[in-house]
Amino acid sequence: MTYGWVALLTDYGRREGYAAACHGVIARIAPDVRIIDITHDVPPQDIRHGAAVLAQTVAYLPPAVIVAVVDPGVGTARRGVALSAGDSVLVGPDNGLLSWAAAELGGVQDAVSLVAREYHLPKRFGTFDGRDVFAPVAAYVATGTSLANLGPPADGLVTLPEPAVNVTAGRVETEVLTVDHFGNVQLAARGSDLDSAEFTAGTVAVELHGKVFEAVRGSVFADVPASGLVLYVDASGHAALAVNRGNAAAALGARPADPLALVRPLIT
Amino acid sequence: MTYGWVALLTDYGRREGYAAACHGVIARIAPDVRIIDITHDVPPQDIRHGAAVLAQTVAYLPPAVIVAVVDPGVGTARRGVALSAGDSVLVGPDNGLLSWAAAELGGVQDAVSLVAREYHLPKRFGTFDGRDVFAPVAAYVATGTSLANLGPPADGLVTLPEPAVNVTAGRVETEVLTVDHFGNVQLAARGSDLDSAEFTAGTVAVELHGKVFEAVRGSVFADVPASGLVLYVDASGHAALAVNRGNAAAALGARPADPLALVRPLIT
Amino acid sequence: MTYGWVALLTDYGRREGYAAACHGVIARIAPDVRIIDITHDVPPQDIRHGAAVLAQTVAYLPPAVIVAVVDPGVGTARRGVALSAGDSVLVGPDNGLLSWAAAELGGVQDAVSLVAREYHLPKRFGTFDGRDVFAPVAAYVATGTSLANLGPPADGLVTLPEPAVNVTAGRVETEVLTVDHFGNVQLAARGSDLDSAEFTAGTVAVELHGKVFEAVRGSVFADVPASGLVLYVDASGHAALAVNRGNAAAALGARPADPLALVRPLIT
Repeated sequence: MTYGWVALLTDYGRREGYAAACHGVIARIAPDVRIIDITHDVPPQDIRHGAAVLAQTVAYLPPAVIVAVVDPGVGTARRGVALSAGDSVLVGPDNGLLSWAAAELGGVQDAVSLVAREYHLPKRFGTFDGRDVFAPVAAYVATGTSLANLGPPADGLVTLPEPAVNVTAGRVETEVLTVDHFGNVQLAARGSDLDSAEFTAGTVAVELHGKVFEAVRGSVFADVPASGLVLYVDASGHAALAVNRGNAAAALGARPADPLALVRPLIT
Repeated sequence: MTYGWVALLTDYGRREGYAAACHGVIARIAPDVRIIDITHDVPPQDIRHGAAVLAQTVAYLPPAVIVAVVDPGVGTARRGVALSAGDSVLVGPDNGLLSWAAAELGGVQDAVSLVAREYHLPKRFGTFDGRDVFAPVAAYVATGTSLANLGPPADGLVTLPEPAVNVTAGRVETEVLTVDHFGNVQLAARGSDLDSAEFTAGTVAVELHGKVFEAVRGSVFADVPASGLVLYVDASGHAALAVNRGNAAAALGARPADPLALVRPLIT
Repeated sequence: MTYGWVALLTDYGRREGYAAACHGVIARIAPDVRIIDITHDVPPQDIRHGAAVLAQTVAYLPPAVIVAVVDPGVGTARRGVALSAGDSVLVGPDNGLLSWAAAELGGVQDAVSLVAREYHLPKRFGTFDGRDVFAPVAAYVATGTSLANLGPPADGLVTLPEPAVNVTAGRVETEVLTVDHFGNVQLAARGSDLDSAEFTAGTVAVELHGKVFEAVRGSVFADVPASGLVLYVDASGHAALAVNRGNAAAALGARPADPLALVRPLIT
């Protein structure tokens, strides 16, 4: 089994050469592999943002070895792991970062702990496992190394807690999952939760930080006038709030992990 | 007709996986195509900045299918289009974003409206046409699908208004076209306009926001001392203002679309 | 001699199409070459940051033609040069930017001044040599053009001054080399300097801006509790200061080029 692509998601930023060093390590081991940079701009050490972006992107990638590194515990006893899931392999720290993506790909098939040193760089610094461990492992997997060679089976993988979603008639209690760079506010609740709560049309009240905002249930930004607030199902299937031609996060004061409720307004 | 490259320009930013999802969609349909990211950092919904960057880059690309997405009207009745121009094909929303690049490539030859659903992703969300419509269309075009298959001819394409340039003897009235990340202030006027106004040497007064600044007409930054202001023809052929080893936009308080006049100072 | 990769490091940023124009120029001349973007986010005109990132990345790249452009003197008499070093070729302005990377690769073997116009773009604007000179030269070198064709030998290359490192028993006087986007503070001193000063365990006082901070000598972030300050050898071999799960640059007020001393605290 070989892979034509390695995909990378990190919080390394773009000012230094950290992501490029990973590219270089992969190119030296697997010169024919192509690389897709999912993002290197995960906010530093923000595992949850990384996990959400990863989970929402993997379905659109070709079969790939997917390396994800948001790793505040680098250098501790936290394991490095490789997981097969769907038609891809996920490689990274065992800190929950990979868990939502693995679920999205259909669940973990095999998982191993990355202890076989011959697939790492000869010198490992302890603060840059992306370059020294995960990139070379991914390159070897892409060129046909089977997971079983990388180390023993890894049981008891760390998973991120599922963010809160509570649906009752006319009420969805949830939290902000991500805020994107347009200011669109993605909720942990999904489109199916909106259906369960019968939020399929009309207006919905948004309770956040003790304030109430009125949103229109729509499907595209233009379902509300410019500066209006729309509640819709976004392109990853999550419920989301946007301001047409504006920035909903700024308008609402919404930040990741904020608790938020959607409520059917009383007709008065 | 096939293309070896797809080029991408968007306002998707780099924190989320939006650009990567487009890469993935293209890789699945057209695995041999290579991708050039023109930029994903167009300021959100800033069609004019995207159009200017696109127009100034296309001449340096290899023959390519060029996808551009700055699309505040996504989900409305605005059309998606594909245009052949020069040795390339432009794909994106029909909101003027493509118009300056098409002109730069020699003008639109054929244009079609992207209505044939078999070249889109099976599920279209209405808020992410870059991934669901434009990326797959580009991949199919790169692998040999002709424009005629994508939909019916598109007449009456939207074009952006040409920014103001008024030249009289000793005076150029124009506006700021872009401000780049060095702070260089690019004007809508071109080098030929400076020639017409006979601004070929000496000093030129810059009128902006009711203030007057003195610039030296030169050709490179070092034609003025450090912190000096130079009026030159930039690498895209536009008149521009720069501060040698400094930031002209900050020094002048110049922002995109600001009206600005260049005036030959009276010799007193 | 041909090269499969061209690597790029610039301060062009990502909002405009400057880096993409370089990609395009290379693709037109050398369509089979692959490109690794080291970074385009060097702070504008910050030669020292660019030189440090380049020097710390090159060892991890495959054999490549490496273009680096941080070039405040573009358009002056400063030379453009190509240098062979190790298994790679460095191309860029002769302003010191390449010097630390060349040393890291084993030193300059051959160096030429880029005066042969047939390897540049036909029209050279004087403010964008990355696109007009360095990118096409790199593409020609990658496809087999020998350095001798590019111009006459270049003697007396500009080198950046080595940053200060003074080691005495129990004291290392040095300076901040870089601050990365995690806030990790990289020093000009290297791991071997810490050894010479016998800073191998225990606590070390950090003198900066007239203040004193206490760091623990460790090897990974988790050698100190969350919010603790650790002195370690980073993944490029430099001494560095980090705050576990925090931002050391913010905590210390450290900026590039700040003088800084590491001192063995008196046992009292």
